[in-house]
Amino acid sequence: MPRYPHIAPTIAGMTGSVYSSLAHRLQAFDGETYPFHIGDTWMEPAVGTRMEDLTVADYPGMHRYAPVQGRRDLLDVISTRTLERTGTAAEPSDILVTAGATGALGAIIGAITEAGDEVLLLAPYWPLISGIVRSSRATPVDVPLIGEADSPETALDIVKSYLTDRTVAIYWNSPNNPTGRVIPKSWIEALVAWAISEDLWILADEVYEDYVFHGEHTYARPLAPERTFSIHSCSKAFGMAGNRCGYAVGPGDKMRHVRKVSTHTFYSTPTAAQIAARRALAGPGDVWAAEAREKYTEIGNAAASRLGIEPPEGSTFLFLDVAEFLDGEGLMGFLSKCVERGILLAPGPSFGPYPTHVRFCYTAVPPEVTARGVEALARLLER
Amino acid sequence: MPRYPHIAPTIAGMTGSVYSSLAHRLQAFDGETYPFHIGDTWMEPAVGTRMEDLTVADYPGMHRYAPVQGRRDLLDVISTRTLERTGTAAEPSDILVTAGATGALGAIIGAITEAGDEVLLLAPYWPLISGIVRSSRATPVDVPLIGEADSPETALDIVKSYLTDRTVAIYWNSPNNPTGRVIPKSWIEALVAWAISEDLWILADEVYEDYVFHGEHTYARPLAPERTFSIHSCSKAFGMAGNRCGYAVGPGDKMRHVRKVSTHTFYSTPTAAQIAARRALAGPGDVWAAEAREKYTEIGNAAASRLGIEPPEGSTFLFLDVAEFLDGEGLMGFLSKCVERGILLAPGPSFGPYPTHVRFCYTAVPPEVTARGVEALARLLER
Repeated sequence: MPRYPHIAPTIAGMTGSVYSSLAHRLQAFDGETYPFHIGDTWMEPAVGTRMEDLTVADYPGMHRYAPVQGRRDLLDVISTRTLERTGTAAEPSDILVTAGATGALGAIIGAITEAGDEVLLLAPYWPLISGIVRSSRATPVDVPLIGEADSPETALDIVKSYLTDRTVAIYWNSPNNPTGRVIPKSWIEALVAWAISEDLWILADEVYEDYVFHGEHTYARPLAPERTFSIHSCSKAFGMAGNRCGYAVGPGDKMRHVRKVSTHTFYSTPTAAQIAARRALAGPGDVWAAEAREKYTEIGNAAASRLGIEPPEGSTFLFLDVAEFLDGEGLMGFLSKCVERGILLAPGPSFGPYPTHVRFCYTAVPPEVTARGVEALARLLER
Repeated sequence: MPRYPHIAPTIAGMTGSVYSSLAHRLQAFDGETYPFHIGDTWMEPAVGTRMEDLTVADYPGMHRYAPVQGRRDLLDVISTRTLERTGTAAEPSDILVTAGATGALGAIIGAITEAGDEVLLLAPYWPLISGIVRSSRATPVDVPLIGEADSPETALDIVKSYLTDRTVAIYWNSPNNPTGRVIPKSWIEALVAWAISEDLWILADEVYEDYVFHGEHTYARPLAPERTFSIHSCSKAFGMAGNRCGYAVGPGDKMRHVRKVSTHTFYSTPTAAQIAARRALAGPGDVWAAEAREKYTEIGNAAASRLGIEPPEGSTFLFLDVAEFLDGEGLMGFLSKCVERGILLAPGPSFGPYPTHVRFCYTAVPPEVTARGVEALARLLER
């Protein structure tokens, strides 16, 4: 029982943002800055999908509440898109429109776990997922796998070693944030088969599905629609992260429970954001994504080449091991040296047990700015 | 351990929406309908605060993520407003911009409770609060008080009888949804003094602060700023519920923990919604609210008069005991009879232990429609 002035131990024990002091120093930096720590895009969303395009004349009542599950026209277009993309039908009852992927995963994990239940997180992972599990009072379990396993068999050997009586679900995100890797189809198939054999829920974070540069994205839901929740985002797909609109697709008889949690955490997804998403999904969004994909590929390849690492397969990130540049001040010392050059990077421990890594987003600022920042980073890394 | 196919018992045990079957029947109703079950407004928000007014030319990057705490210009204006309205300063660090009041209360309760901790809810209460507490794995405790107590002393007698070793916080919303009552200053003072004496957190839901028709709203935070979280909403104040933008004000050294939970449930409040809120708070919002307040007063008074009950003191609701009209089919039978007349009302049990009550929002549809719906309801109630 915390009572005043005590915070709940679970939350008190969580680390807050590690950026604030570094970001503050970056603001004071005298010169061009490179905020590579954020996962965002410099591109404005497609004409026709911006807030200025949504008028009260066209959409009377558009500032009022939307239905908690989502607007019917948006559910319908997501239903169609899901069938087209995955080959597996999704009824509107299988779909929940959410406050981004964060809102989706919070509601799903809230619905399937009780305090102390464990969720396996294939690492490196999206940095919010660990805190989402913890905020739900479940226990995140880091499973370093991407970059470690080299076949479906070794991937299974790794996940099996983390299974306990408390494990209830397995989470992965592919195309992967932060590594830029795409998990191969044979691995996804093996992981799904194993999850089925162990009665686990599957959480497939597919928000970068539109950003695959090499290889192919494998949708998990068709392999086990009865137990898979797939998570999608208009933030990444269409450059509208500030709108807070994503969606989850899962088994309809379970989604009604997920809706109970979403209703009590963010209530409904912003109405205007849903209209913008509907308009993007009608065509302009895919055109925008195709253009973005082409640009992102070029920038990602150029950055990887200059930094002397493998080109990204997908997402919008590179993940670098900077162990050889760390001194007694460790990773924070390195990040501090970056800030002295105007560069802000995300620290490896946000993504799992990676004390000597940093993540770099190459789409947050315009390409020419990114190029200059990469040059500054390459020089710091003596490359 | 739920594992597939089981849902977490806490969530499985929660009731879902009670409206769906009734709402479905209402859609099929042949004639004018009266969706009085929703708490919303028929008015469009002020010109200058609509999505169509927010352009990329004026706000480059306005579809990108906002800072998780909120945009700095919005935090600053909330800080100024809080001092002006309450006489007690609020630093930006005391403020969190949230996905409506739902996002605010979810994050606060997530930060101050562990599983099984109890939160006292002064009833009748805002219908989402019970599920918010439950979704956080804490235990909601119904404390029927509004309409029961008739003095600060009797109010205290009631709350004291619900205190246990697990109680960590007390919640009230005033102006009250659903009753339309405003909790008197002397009661608020007594409740705060008692909360201090018992080391309880205070959750003051003040989202209807702009809608007081008789009496005066009492801000709780000035009485105990070290332990009070006050919750405010642009949804109700400025007619932008679909934007999902509200804010919480609380002790800064605790708000940093609340931010950890909000970051992991909805991440950030929509960027465009924050710009709209900032524009509303610059002046147009208060002009809009003054006009709304005048209209709401007139409509609320007329509805109460026609239904033969006391005029509302605030909020946008009336709460009616319809016990004398219930037959063997109970409250659902009565709600069903309403739907046969095109009227949808919210059932009393959503607001606490009120098996024979219904809630009626008189601002959801235009005044002339409301008037016809009230007439139909009055005839059903033989008034």
